[in-house]
Amino acid sequence: MKVINDVKFLIVGLGLIGGSYAQALTDLGYEVGAITRSQSSIDYAVENGLIAHGTTEVTEDYVSKFDVVVFALYPKVFIDWIDKYQSYFKSGALITDVTGVKSPIVYKIQDMLRDDVEFVGAHPMAGKEVYGVQNADKSIFAQANYIVTPTEKNTESAIETTKQIGRLLGFKTVCELSPEKHDEMIGFLSQLTHCIAVSLMDCKESKNLVDYTGDSFRDLTRIAKINDAMWSELFLLNKDELISQMDLFLSKFKELRDALENEDTEKMREMMRISTERRKYFDKK
Amino acid sequence: MKVINDVKFLIVGLGLIGGSYAQALTDLGYEVGAITRSQSSIDYAVENGLIAHGTTEVTEDYVSKFDVVVFALYPKVFIDWIDKYQSYFKSGALITDVTGVKSPIVYKIQDMLRDDVEFVGAHPMAGKEVYGVQNADKSIFAQANYIVTPTEKNTESAIETTKQIGRLLGFKTVCELSPEKHDEMIGFLSQLTHCIAVSLMDCKESKNLVDYTGDSFRDLTRIAKINDAMWSELFLLNKDELISQMDLFLSKFKELRDALENEDTEKMREMMRISTERRKYFDKK
Repeated sequence: MKVINDVKFLIVGLGLIGGSYAQALTDLGYEVGAITRSQSSIDYAVENGLIAHGTTEVTEDYVSKFDVVVFALYPKVFIDWIDKYQSYFKSGALITDVTGVKSPIVYKIQDMLRDDVEFVGAHPMAGKEVYGVQNADKSIFAQANYIVTPTEKNTESAIETTKQIGRLLGFKTVCELSPEKHDEMIGFLSQLTHCIAVSLMDCKESKNLVDYTGDSFRDLTRIAKINDAMWSELFLLNKDELISQMDLFLSKFKELRDALENEDTEKMREMMRISTERRKYFDKK
Repeated sequence: MKVINDVKFLIVGLGLIGGSYAQALTDLGYEVGAITRSQSSIDYAVENGLIAHGTTEVTEDYVSKFDVVVFALYPKVFIDWIDKYQSYFKSGALITDVTGVKSPIVYKIQDMLRDDVEFVGAHPMAGKEVYGVQNADKSIFAQANYIVTPTEKNTESAIETTKQIGRLLGFKTVCELSPEKHDEMIGFLSQLTHCIAVSLMDCKESKNLVDYTGDSFRDLTRIAKINDAMWSELFLLNKDELISQMDLFLSKFKELRDALENEDTEKMREMMRISTERRKYFDKK
């Protein structure tokens, strides 16, 4: 299957990410439909030209129209949806998702799924600190990475189509990782950083510090504004990996703390030299 | 004493901050001189119009010309300088500084100092991840805070003049804190955040992660590029306060870690709701 102009896309879950997918694909000329819980999201998306049509009811008649179905739901809701409604998919449909944790989702969905449809997991590493289809904005993909997480069950052509969707959406980079490697990477780069920001922000009732606050603290805590329902679910799904990343960070932080307590200047300076050296890798080109 | 046009400023230590002070004051029409270790810094600053003149030698003849002396040195070097050369100051001179930790500096300098000169501590909360007079840039003050940390020994007029210098330099806000309150605030907002960034960056040889890295990790580790000589000295000077802030952060981080380990979703969500609420204080207006 190729992504070509007569392919029809169904977005299930019309929030910030689902809405941004819809906008990008509609703007490219594809027919995009949506299923979501609230009628007002459908109305908004139709009125603003993000989708051609949509419904709050899951029917075989509607679902079976579509060649590609993108799930932009919370993980558990996604699994329940597949369990209940997978018989409605058109035979040969490609199923993909936007879930931020892969191993516990990808294998489960693939195990559950009918043999005549194929699921390829994907993680668009894009977002905003606001929610809902009203904030949909395809430009969030331009500087972001789109990671496809195939398994042995996937066919080359479905993997290629899933990557092609990432390119169509306008992602800066499209790459491939195993579900396990993805979860390790995301545990460190994204989940751990959110844990740090939340913990730091929780330290003090800090309203009185606003006037003294510079960019360092603001940058470090930007992601402390967090959707608690979604992120707690993602943390739990990646529990073992995230605990091991948190423990690694704890041990390094304690090393620095103990060096300070022991007035071990050379140890502190060594840790700072390492961080200075490594941070250079991440300078934007 | 008022800051008026015939006041002469001496900058001791011509690095990024000293050079930026010099640039701002020279541009306002003041006569600015400098004492610093390397002749090439003096040459650069004269050639680029940052200072009127400068020297690498500390002489009574030169030092006694100046009405206001700004120390932009590492803390220990600053104290040694006062110890050796304070007899050279003009009687009635105002002495100030840019040191990032105040209690251990301010009281010590005031105790050492001659009775006919006055020291008022100040902390310009501005910087860059680069060093040296070649990177001097007065525009770094425009979005930053300038904190004056007077003690009971200071006169109203010297405090006012020190604040006036902050306004002349172009700081966004000029405010007053006790040395102790300053060190508590800076321990939390600045030193703790640097400890976090350094520890996070030290966790892994992370070169292989660059391609997957989004803004969250980049923002969180920007300050992991750090001048190890200066920051280790500042950490040690504020040791007790910083240790207590690090321990506070450690306890919150462990709370979140343990909530995850125990799959205590409600606890995790509560911590995230608190951080989301508090982070709103820091949205830029």
